Amino acid sequence: MEVVNRYVATRHHIEGAPTEADFEVKEEMARWAPDSGEVLVRNLYLSIDPYQLNRMKRSSVTHLAVEGILPGQRITTYAAGEVVASACEEYKAGDKVAGVLGWEDYTLFKPSPAVVMSKVADDAAGFPLSHHINVLGTSGMTAYGGFFEVCKPVKGEKVFVSAASGSVGSLVGQFAKLAGCYVVGCAGTAAKVDLLKGKLGFDDAFNYKEEPDLKSALKRYFPDGIDIYFENVGGEMLEAALANMNPYGRVALSGVISEYTGGARRAVPDLLEVIYKRITIRGFFAYDFLSKFAEFNAVIGGWVRDGKVQVLEDVSDGLESVPSAFAALFRGQNVGKKLVKLA
Amino acid sequence: MEVVNRYVATRHHIEGAPTEADFEVKEEMARWAPDSGEVLVRNLYLSIDPYQLNRMKRSSVTHLAVEGILPGQRITTYAAGEVVASACEEYKAGDKVAGVLGWEDYTLFKPSPAVVMSKVADDAAGFPLSHHINVLGTSGMTAYGGFFEVCKPVKGEKVFVSAASGSVGSLVGQFAKLAGCYVVGCAGTAAKVDLLKGKLGFDDAFNYKEEPDLKSALKRYFPDGIDIYFENVGGEMLEAALANMNPYGRVALSGVISEYTGGARRAVPDLLEVIYKRITIRGFFAYDFLSKFAEFNAVIGGWVRDGKVQVLEDVSDGLESVPSAFAALFRGQNVGKKLVKLA
Repeated sequence: MEVVNRYVATRHHIEGAPTEADFEVKEEMARWAPDSGEVLVRNLYLSIDPYQLNRMKRSSVTHLAVEGILPGQRITTYAAGEVVASACEEYKAGDKVAGVLGWEDYTLFKPSPAVVMSKVADDAAGFPLSHHINVLGTSGMTAYGGFFEVCKPVKGEKVFVSAASGSVGSLVGQFAKLAGCYVVGCAGTAAKVDLLKGKLGFDDAFNYKEEPDLKSALKRYFPDGIDIYFENVGGEMLEAALANMNPYGRVALSGVISEYTGGARRAVPDLLEVIYKRITIRGFFAYDFLSKFAEFNAVIGGWVRDGKVQVLEDVSDGLESVPSAFAALFRGQNVGKKLVKLA
Repeated sequence: MEVVNRYVATRHHIEGAPTEADFEVKEEMARWAPDSGEVLVRNLYLSIDPYQLNRMKRSSVTHLAVEGILPGQRITTYAAGEVVASACEEYKAGDKVAGVLGWEDYTLFKPSPAVVMSKVADDAAGFPLSHHINVLGTSGMTAYGGFFEVCKPVKGEKVFVSAASGSVGSLVGQFAKLAGCYVVGCAGTAAKVDLLKGKLGFDDAFNYKEEPDLKSALKRYFPDGIDIYFENVGGEMLEAALANMNPYGRVALSGVISEYTGGARRAVPDLLEVIYKRITIRGFFAYDFLSKFAEFNAVIGGWVRDGKVQVLEDVSDGLESVPSAFAALFRGQNVGKKLVKLA
């Protein structure tokens, strides 16, 4: 079987904030054969995540954990789709899957323990397919693993979440409330702040763009100090959080989006604060928790089903919208998980 | 009983590198009464530690963990001495003690659970009294707790120690060898480097002052990467270590002496490195391990007795030498634990 596969590629390495012009849609033929052992997936929802920018830089540390992206080449991403043709027993045509696919119409993969892919149960639970690359996918794993396993919250602790209306932050804040914590989030617009305090049930929230001094802002929102900081931003926000942390505070380093584009100045943490308050700063990412995927999803799925966790999805239509959807992340234009739905 | 007590005080707050002129020796009368419940100690060895500088600044974070030092006032320190008079049952004249005393000839204390003080056994083991404020005191606790409890070393792991000829670093390197690790230390003179590679048994060592590029220096000394970094220095050294760390690396943040005086630029860690390598950075200090003091000292004492750990002591004579001994720490002039012996 042969299909025309359109895919999004970078035109060149990207060093600053991405724009639509940095990308192009290309075409190739995707060939599947019955003796290939491969599975051909038609992609239905693509995940649009900030960390991809680090893979697009000429030289970056990302080669340590994830492959760099070469100009003109296909771009892997977490995505969900439907099996069109399968040359192996585990999958058959019509199966829904979620895992590492691509910013493209079709992806071929060969099942192996090294391939991150799961069949999505035939929706007994009634979750939309998109949830499987969001709250029941990498965003959920990042939020759940980062909050419960890295931060080890105790009931009553004070939690600060940056980029709190984003895909991960919006979940962390809700998880923290379910864990009995006091939660304050920050975001970049008044509408997002309302969303955090309203629909998402944060105890409080503020617009960081309206705060000339982040240290004193956090002092106001956390008169008793911060026990847990779930970090999605970096730069001055990390410095301000450290200055307001309590002894034995924990910082879960999930992302530092302000530092990805090179536009903001990087964090210069006060290491004396870290020593004297015995703070732990720990970097992690979703795939660290792959072995606990089913366990996490059982809990998260229950919360979503019971209406205890609200899922925010910000969906663009069509493969052509991938570049603008991606660029929008760095302008703070998404609310919740940014996805692209393919026709 | 009344004794003349000479004590070392700061003349003013100190913001940069300290000099002898920042201090003065003052006098007061120390009064002990039989109904006071107090113990009068004649101090014999005083500990001289870099962190004290942070207590001497006008405004510092140190108030969070340790009391600030006011100009003209007595200065508390870890020290060892002999009981001269006691108004409580647990102590009697002639007992040797180690704990929080002062940069002074005599200290009065009232036993309570909040007071860090221990009687030093009448030297069945034959350890010199000075060891009780060094390898069997805070330096040993910092090195042992920081290395074994914070870093959780595994045999064969690669360990980097900065300020490796200092009081804590010299012990960490030896403990790491005993744990079956590969250990490289850095120090600031050729003689110190020889000491690390010779007497202390480090696998390798280098003079950081002779390395124009710390990142490439560490790449040379750790072709397979660093698993554990025991941090005593801060600044560029931390950045270079992070750049060379392996996935799941651990940084034990014990001190950042290069940042205490404001002379060197502060560390701007690459947070993407921390995320993608899932590095943990953890601040701690000796008193975090107070409950394990006896347990640690049983192990450390055994190693010292068996000659498996060499103890470096750099002793100055007389209370008048405290200011110069302290200032020397920031010029890298000490080798091992800096102590002042009182006559």
